Amino acid sequence: MTVPRLLPSAEAEDLLELARDIADHELAPRAADFEARAEFPGDVLRTLGKAGLLGLPYPEEYGGGGQPYEVYAQVLEVLASRWLSVAESVNVHTVACRALAAHGTPEQRRAFLPAMLDGLALGANCMSEAAAGSDVAALAVRAVRDGDDYVVDGTKAWVTHAGVADLYLVYCRTSGSGARGISCLLADAGTPGLLPQPPEKKMGVASSPTAQVVFDAARVPAERLVGREGRGFLVAMDSVQGGRIGIAACAVGLAQAAFDYAVRYARNRVQFGQPILSFQGVGFLLADLATQIAAARALTLAAARLLDAGRPFAVEAAKAKLFATDVAMRVTTEAVQVLGGHGYVTDHPVERWMREAKLLQLVEGTNQIQRVVISQAL
Amino acid sequence: MTVPRLLPSAEAEDLLELARDIADHELAPRAADFEARAEFPGDVLRTLGKAGLLGLPYPEEYGGGGQPYEVYAQVLEVLASRWLSVAESVNVHTVACRALAAHGTPEQRRAFLPAMLDGLALGANCMSEAAAGSDVAALAVRAVRDGDDYVVDGTKAWVTHAGVADLYLVYCRTSGSGARGISCLLADAGTPGLLPQPPEKKMGVASSPTAQVVFDAARVPAERLVGREGRGFLVAMDSVQGGRIGIAACAVGLAQAAFDYAVRYARNRVQFGQPILSFQGVGFLLADLATQIAAARALTLAAARLLDAGRPFAVEAAKAKLFATDVAMRVTTEAVQVLGGHGYVTDHPVERWMREAKLLQLVEGTNQIQRVVISQAL
Amino acid sequence: MTVPRLLPSAEAEDLLELARDIADHELAPRAADFEARAEFPGDVLRTLGKAGLLGLPYPEEYGGGGQPYEVYAQVLEVLASRWLSVAESVNVHTVACRALAAHGTPEQRRAFLPAMLDGLALGANCMSEAAAGSDVAALAVRAVRDGDDYVVDGTKAWVTHAGVADLYLVYCRTSGSGARGISCLLADAGTPGLLPQPPEKKMGVASSPTAQVVFDAARVPAERLVGREGRGFLVAMDSVQGGRIGIAACAVGLAQAAFDYAVRYARNRVQFGQPILSFQGVGFLLADLATQIAAARALTLAAARLLDAGRPFAVEAAKAKLFATDVAMRVTTEAVQVLGGHGYVTDHPVERWMREAKLLQLVEGTNQIQRVVISQAL
Amino acid sequence: MTVPRLLPSAEAEDLLELARDIADHELAPRAADFEARAEFPGDVLRTLGKAGLLGLPYPEEYGGGGQPYEVYAQVLEVLASRWLSVAESVNVHTVACRALAAHGTPEQRRAFLPAMLDGLALGANCMSEAAAGSDVAALAVRAVRDGDDYVVDGTKAWVTHAGVADLYLVYCRTSGSGARGISCLLADAGTPGLLPQPPEKKMGVASSPTAQVVFDAARVPAERLVGREGRGFLVAMDSVQGGRIGIAACAVGLAQAAFDYAVRYARNRVQFGQPILSFQGVGFLLADLATQIAAARALTLAAARLLDAGRPFAVEAAKAKLFATDVAMRVTTEAVQVLGGHGYVTDHPVERWMREAKLLQLVEGTNQIQRVVISQAL
Repeated sequence: MTVPRLLPSAEAEDLLELARDIADHELAPRAADFEARAEFPGDVLRTLGKAGLLGLPYPEEYGGGGQPYEVYAQVLEVLASRWLSVAESVNVHTVACRALAAHGTPEQRRAFLPAMLDGLALGANCMSEAAAGSDVAALAVRAVRDGDDYVVDGTKAWVTHAGVADLYLVYCRTSGSGARGISCLLADAGTPGLLPQPPEKKMGVASSPTAQVVFDAARVPAERLVGREGRGFLVAMDSVQGGRIGIAACAVGLAQAAFDYAVRYARNRVQFGQPILSFQGVGFLLADLATQIAAARALTLAAARLLDAGRPFAVEAAKAKLFATDVAMRVTTEAVQVLGGHGYVTDHPVERWMREAKLLQLVEGTNQIQRVVISQAL
Repeated sequence: MTVPRLLPSAEAEDLLELARDIADHELAPRAADFEARAEFPGDVLRTLGKAGLLGLPYPEEYGGGGQPYEVYAQVLEVLASRWLSVAESVNVHTVACRALAAHGTPEQRRAFLPAMLDGLALGANCMSEAAAGSDVAALAVRAVRDGDDYVVDGTKAWVTHAGVADLYLVYCRTSGSGARGISCLLADAGTPGLLPQPPEKKMGVASSPTAQVVFDAARVPAERLVGREGRGFLVAMDSVQGGRIGIAACAVGLAQAAFDYAVRYARNRVQFGQPILSFQGVGFLLADLATQIAAARALTLAAARLLDAGRPFAVEAAKAKLFATDVAMRVTTEAVQVLGGHGYVTDHPVERWMREAKLLQLVEGTNQIQRVVISQAL
Repeated sequence: MTVPRLLPSAEAEDLLELARDIADHELAPRAADFEARAEFPGDVLRTLGKAGLLGLPYPEEYGGGGQPYEVYAQVLEVLASRWLSVAESVNVHTVACRALAAHGTPEQRRAFLPAMLDGLALGANCMSEAAAGSDVAALAVRAVRDGDDYVVDGTKAWVTHAGVADLYLVYCRTSGSGARGISCLLADAGTPGLLPQPPEKKMGVASSPTAQVVFDAARVPAERLVGREGRGFLVAMDSVQGGRIGIAACAVGLAQAAFDYAVRYARNRVQFGQPILSFQGVGFLLADLATQIAAARALTLAAARLLDAGRPFAVEAAKAKLFATDVAMRVTTEAVQVLGGHGYVTDHPVERWMREAKLLQLVEGTNQIQRVVISQAL
Repeated sequence: MTVPRLLPSAEAEDLLELARDIADHELAPRAADFEARAEFPGDVLRTLGKAGLLGLPYPEEYGGGGQPYEVYAQVLEVLASRWLSVAESVNVHTVACRALAAHGTPEQRRAFLPAMLDGLALGANCMSEAAAGSDVAALAVRAVRDGDDYVVDGTKAWVTHAGVADLYLVYCRTSGSGARGISCLLADAGTPGLLPQPPEKKMGVASSPTAQVVFDAARVPAERLVGREGRGFLVAMDSVQGGRIGIAACAVGLAQAAFDYAVRYARNRVQFGQPILSFQGVGFLLADLATQIAAARALTLAAARLLDAGRPFAVEAAKAKLFATDVAMRVTTEAVQVLGGHGYVTDHPVERWMREAKLLQLVEGTNQIQRVVISQAL
């Protein structure tokens, strides 16, 4: 289906067109095979970097696109509609960039952002731990100051890009307990003692590797502290909030892909002498899904526009993430249903999309955490 | 709660402020009593007319506000949050105005729009019939040309403003069967043989009268034909489509009112030693409702912006109407739940809001009809 | 629709037949008028008492029917399908009887049960208070021992049958705070200082009066203590648990009535040249509702059979109450939808049923409290 | 959790105990590995046959268990809670047996049922075709009488047990078009020209092979006609109807397994200093799931009891299948959510259960077909 969009500029329209072109020609043809092999598409990300799609919402002075989040979100949506793993990678990378762009020193920004925004250096965020998932403030990986370095010990979990990233933002405990004693360090992939583990075996989104990262007396120079010591929790929350809009956009794209596929199938599949789309039992279901997707997109863009306007957006981002990912789960599950048995086999991508959708309800804060965020604002 | 809004102009912000002021001081204090007495608030509508809030989305040359539908929808939302009957009246009136503004001759516009947009002449739409509800094309009220007049016979049903309107847009059959033989006439309230019946006894929204209108050889001058003869179905559909965005906006306002009331109650009501808002069982419910309302608002405004941009908007209007009114039904029903037994008694307005919400799922095309509209576009 | 039932005995089939007969001929014809006037149908309850339908699940030695709860629940369902207020009255009365039957002394049972089970003495339960709704253990109405009496002071809220009952089971604080200091007293309606207040103005179920009962130095003889002093909370919880199955049965009956009405309407209502039932958009909706109702009934009877088998049933009763009342709310709301505008006016009973359904989600513990009961059992 | 069950006999309790024992010790330990390798567990089915669990609802004279469907359904539930593929196999086999038991000649029954009910001969049903999925009456595989044989040509699709079955019930067209020209043949696995194709690559339930079966001039003796010529559609529908109760029971078992796993996890997983089960955000979710599962079980057993009582049960079976499989989809999806990221990886079985649940919404008639069945009965 053609999605009706009102973009803020001709430049934005061009970017969407470019994103669609790359998504159709570089992402779509590779997705099924790469996912089946759980292979990370490093080349594809470099292509996106060259095309200027890896640094859209960041300042042009550092090589970013200078685009509003409203446009970034729609680009992400287009990418996700062709290959979720890639869109998820872009979002994770964008979250990593935000920590530096918003909280780094001018030197740090100059030193790292250009390569990141060009796609030459891929970022990763080491936030969760086995015992500190939703409860980030309880994290236990320690960083102890030793001369000009911090020495980091412990194990991070659920790190997207573990093993393929060039730069790791590591949230670790520099003092006390709770949110106040957390700091953020920027570690190179080659740091001795920074040890990515083998990737988790996930139900889907296999091309985007997720793994533990063990820190074994890994030394990170003190000048790599992002934000002030003890203020890492704020850096984490701030970058995650923008990331939630990104995940919402990914969810909209994935849902749209599944919906479009189901509509095409329902137009062509004849049963009882008619295309099944002409039965209200199918048509009304698709009407409901179309409505949910449109609402998810509108809500996601509303949150993005608040961010762009410099207004508080954290609660609206949580709403968008919660709503859009629930929609993606529902739409992909129903898309399989529309295809019937055909939807359950790997000949069609909808079964994969259904498996992928589930991830989105879990990342950047589970949907339960989004509800905590929203209800605490009441 | 303060709703985060990004309005397109300072003038729009002033209009919202004005709407809030009138809603708080003119609507809110009267709603419960007028509804209990099923009394139409003619004075309140005149106040809105004087304030310039009855003709917002129409050209300034006819006395309209020259505002985008995006702003009109938000003004309507604010009014609905204080008294749904009034917002519903405004929307019905706006629908009637649209038939003239978009399809009337220049003479008709000059003759009728100024009084309508100033609130001096209230409009009504005679579309449904007892046997032709969702199936408007099957309508049977006949208009037969006789000299310079049409003579109208038959009975219209579900006419909002029946008995209080000054001008009635009457959709009637001038030939054949089906959509092609329908024409639209503009009849004065005083037309002999135009006979509004006693109002229906509705579950809610009693201050907005709904009734049959019997036409007994009512003569309407042929110059009162709005649009060409036989093209009345298009006039009907076109005005209804804008009306759907209006109903969606009403639904958002009603839902927001019920939500805000429930939140305030949940903050103050102590059980088991704590405000019940602090229990996740209540807090998560409210978080879900907040998310639904935000999505409904975003979707409604997205449809309005398409209309404003001159883009096709009918399908998006149907989605907004479907989604927002379902949200209003859910939110008001749950708001009663949050108040417990208190929600079930007339001491609090939430039981009334729940009764009112149901109307919105039925008017301007039932939500089943919206699904037909959406699925036929696939 | 004919509901497929497998009843445990021929006697049970006769009882169901009797209930159907009375429901059709004594309840159905009066419901709309009595509800409109908020009049309590004392005569109807006496008719039920004479017919032996007010004491079904209690021992025959006290004049009860000696029937399993499985049969009682289905009788209640049948009554509720014709007039919810009456079924709700029967259930409230049955709850009151349970306190005596299960916790009363042999003398108390002999003295009060026969009249109650014959419908000569109607029971009421004074449990909730304005500040102690869901949190029954926090109740504050005090009973102080003075000679051979307890002197009761304070105000009870949400008392069904207030003003029409003959016997009030009053849960009050005889010591300390919390669940341990609560006792249950049986007070005559004529007790000086037992002062029922004017009934609440409810959204529905108006024929079943609900009101505060003020106790102003009301003296209740100590021999009227039901259960031991300080053990009243257990009496309350025990009687409420059976009451939850009753409410679930009422919800099934109400839902079935609304469903049957909607199906009949959908069979006869022609739009677009066909009965609307033949459109899958309506047919699938009704199929979903039929499924929900069947599940609600099956779950309710499963809980009743556990009670009958002497097995723990409190958690299953909570599930049945939660599920069946949510189904009733959904089915009645959708039944209005199937009728379209006709559903919204008082010419048809569905708007009333929708208003009535909401009560069921609130009484005998709100549905939030049911979730507390269920989750605490995990 | 211990599921409260009221079984009809001590023998039934023993059977359930036996099923639990086998499920825990023979099924559970193999499930994950076999599924990962997509290996059919022939040995396990033989074990079930030896234990008497493959022929429960069939007469003892043919080696069946002589048990009511009510008991069979609960055994199936227990098996499904440990390994869905095996329970699905049992149900497919039971469906095949039903065709013979209910429609076969006495000779056919004596010849084939004993081996089938003992598990020595596994059955399969060849019903669907690529172009005739939901619309069984449109099937095109032809059987032409030639002497004492039928010669079968064409391709069947979605055949469970294709390649591992010993006996295939083949529904094919012997005349005309539509339901009237369909006949049922019983073909041996070794029939020349009966060519099972390689198994489909499914999202889950991989240990239960599903494949096309090509018939290339396969000769089936005319004495293998099950039911009369031209009456095969009735045989198909009748056996499928019982199969729907079986799928419903499988769904209940799968949902219960996922629920129990999630509850155990939620009891042990500590975040924010407490087991997450103690947060109402999790506890209320689990309460809702527990309620849904209990309703699904009750509805499934209600349909089974109707079948056992010789009452019409097709519509209730459709309701049970629709409801229970939707519940399984929801519960498994939410179980992953309760485990968070842990739920998304193969270290825990919940991601597999979520993939498996989707199958149940598709087999024995998609849930859309169930709605057709239910709505047509209105």
